[in-house]
Amino acid sequence: MTVRTWRPEDPGPIAIALDTLVAGVHFRADAAPWAIGHKALAVNLSDLAAMGARPRRALVHLAHPDSGEGWEREFAAGLDALAARFTVQVDREATRCAPLAVTVEVAGTFPGGARPPLRRSGARPGDAVYVTGTLGDAAGALAGAPALAGRLDLPEPRVAAGMALREIATSAIDVSDGLAADVGHVLRASRAGASIEAARLPLSAALLAAFGPERATDLALAGGDDYELAFTVPPERERLLAEAPLGVPVTRIGTIERGSGLRCLGADGGMRPFPRGYEHFANGDGRDGKGDAASAPEPSPRP
Amino acid sequence: MTVRTWRPEDPGPIAIALDTLVAGVHFRADAAPWAIGHKALAVNLSDLAAMGARPRRALVHLAHPDSGEGWEREFAAGLDALAARFTVQVDREATRCAPLAVTVEVAGTFPGGARPPLRRSGARPGDAVYVTGTLGDAAGALAGAPALAGRLDLPEPRVAAGMALREIATSAIDVSDGLAADVGHVLRASRAGASIEAARLPLSAALLAAFGPERATDLALAGGDDYELAFTVPPERERLLAEAPLGVPVTRIGTIERGSGLRCLGADGGMRPFPRGYEHFANGDGRDGKGDAASAPEPSPRP
Repeated sequence: MTVRTWRPEDPGPIAIALDTLVAGVHFRADAAPWAIGHKALAVNLSDLAAMGARPRRALVHLAHPDSGEGWEREFAAGLDALAARFTVQVDREATRCAPLAVTVEVAGTFPGGARPPLRRSGARPGDAVYVTGTLGDAAGALAGAPALAGRLDLPEPRVAAGMALREIATSAIDVSDGLAADVGHVLRASRAGASIEAARLPLSAALLAAFGPERATDLALAGGDDYELAFTVPPERERLLAEAPLGVPVTRIGTIERGSGLRCLGADGGMRPFPRGYEHFANGDGRDGKGDAASAPEPSPRP
Repeated sequence: MTVRTWRPEDPGPIAIALDTLVAGVHFRADAAPWAIGHKALAVNLSDLAAMGARPRRALVHLAHPDSGEGWEREFAAGLDALAARFTVQVDREATRCAPLAVTVEVAGTFPGGARPPLRRSGARPGDAVYVTGTLGDAAGALAGAPALAGRLDLPEPRVAAGMALREIATSAIDVSDGLAADVGHVLRASRAGASIEAARLPLSAALLAAFGPERATDLALAGGDDYELAFTVPPERERLLAEAPLGVPVTRIGTIERGSGLRCLGADGGMRPFPRGYEHFANGDGRDGKGDAASAPEPSPRP
């Protein structure tokens, strides 16, 4: 139980993200406590980044069955280090109970100007589809590549990119369920389709070295937990990307089209199949945990 | 993972409450789903009530190992019924994972005027100590009185009282850990002491019938989960209580004094001991789960 007052630093809407991570479900109970602290905050910062919000305040509730002081201190250090980089003020509370679980709420504001928050619903046919960073690395770590463990355990929320993209992009989402699934969310919210080109997917050298190009592409299409941003940009604004303070390279991977569903094109221009088990995400008829809540309209219109 | 934007309905500070309830720890896994939904929201509304905030928006995350649609629907019905009474807009998300747990975040605003949020730190020597409603009923339910089960399972957050008290009280807290423990939080935050009179504690007829006056008084002093408000009022403002739209009877139970610690006086004017095991709460040297976070100052001064 945690309660706080906060005077928002900017007028206009605020963004609130909420997530609970449970040991044995969302992270290993024996994971390093500082990594758990980092990730618990990072996934919420990533959610705000996808809206273009600047994170400001976090409430953290740690439930730990035998919260040794050393464990709690390490957990706090990992969380606070990430919070400090984004000047997020953290209020933390711990309760002694099982199972080990971390709940994080982060509130943010939208500095400067009247442009609305980024949403999933703004993609329009003709927009280019971009992603930040590289894809598939976290899934590569899960598949056994130790060189990629940092991408799984210590995701880097694309906060600066999100804030800069609020002026440029028509829609955005963070890639937590996997590229195909998350672009699928955008397509459903935007009532559009898209084609992406497998050969354009940004793959890290470490991923290619560990898995080769075919499997690396599968991991990039379907693997989750990368916490990169996928976003759409109208052709006339693409040139703005080069000058924007994104803090991370971006890659054009495809185009929004009329219709529905996501197609992946191979090097020969034919359809490249998605990895088994992920088609239902891409085609939008599956139920998934992420949901499309953030695509709903604001309750009150902007003045 | 849930994320939302929200345009606050009032200028000035906002209040955010966060709580995670885990089955087997904070509620029985076989409790009625609508009661779980009610209580998960109620405890957060109670936290906002203690600050005098008007609740506005809630994010709800339900983790359920086998979230049958019937279960989820009942859970949502219980939560939504309470939300509707206070016109709180709810965004809800469910994930299929164990253990059964509910995380609720509620954000609120402070309508009308420049008076700051109620805090735990504002009690001053000479203030009268009041409580809303009756005390000990939830503990009486835990101790086996079936007539009191509703007070434990379906707590009534004192939202109207909290909002009205923002104009009258110098401090407030919700009684979730028990009167002695929670008044102890106020005393530490306010650097003051207090005396309360056992004979003034408001006891329900059902509690008295089930346990008799001595045990009922013990339950009222030490039992948690009542979610009444305890608050302090300067003598010159006590007359305002009669006209204020509190929505619940209030009872004067004692007085804030110089010094530290909480004393309970018996009918003979001598010290009445607290129930065994609760002295450390009242005297402020124990560690407890509720913490004193809400007593900290706001990050930025009010204009």
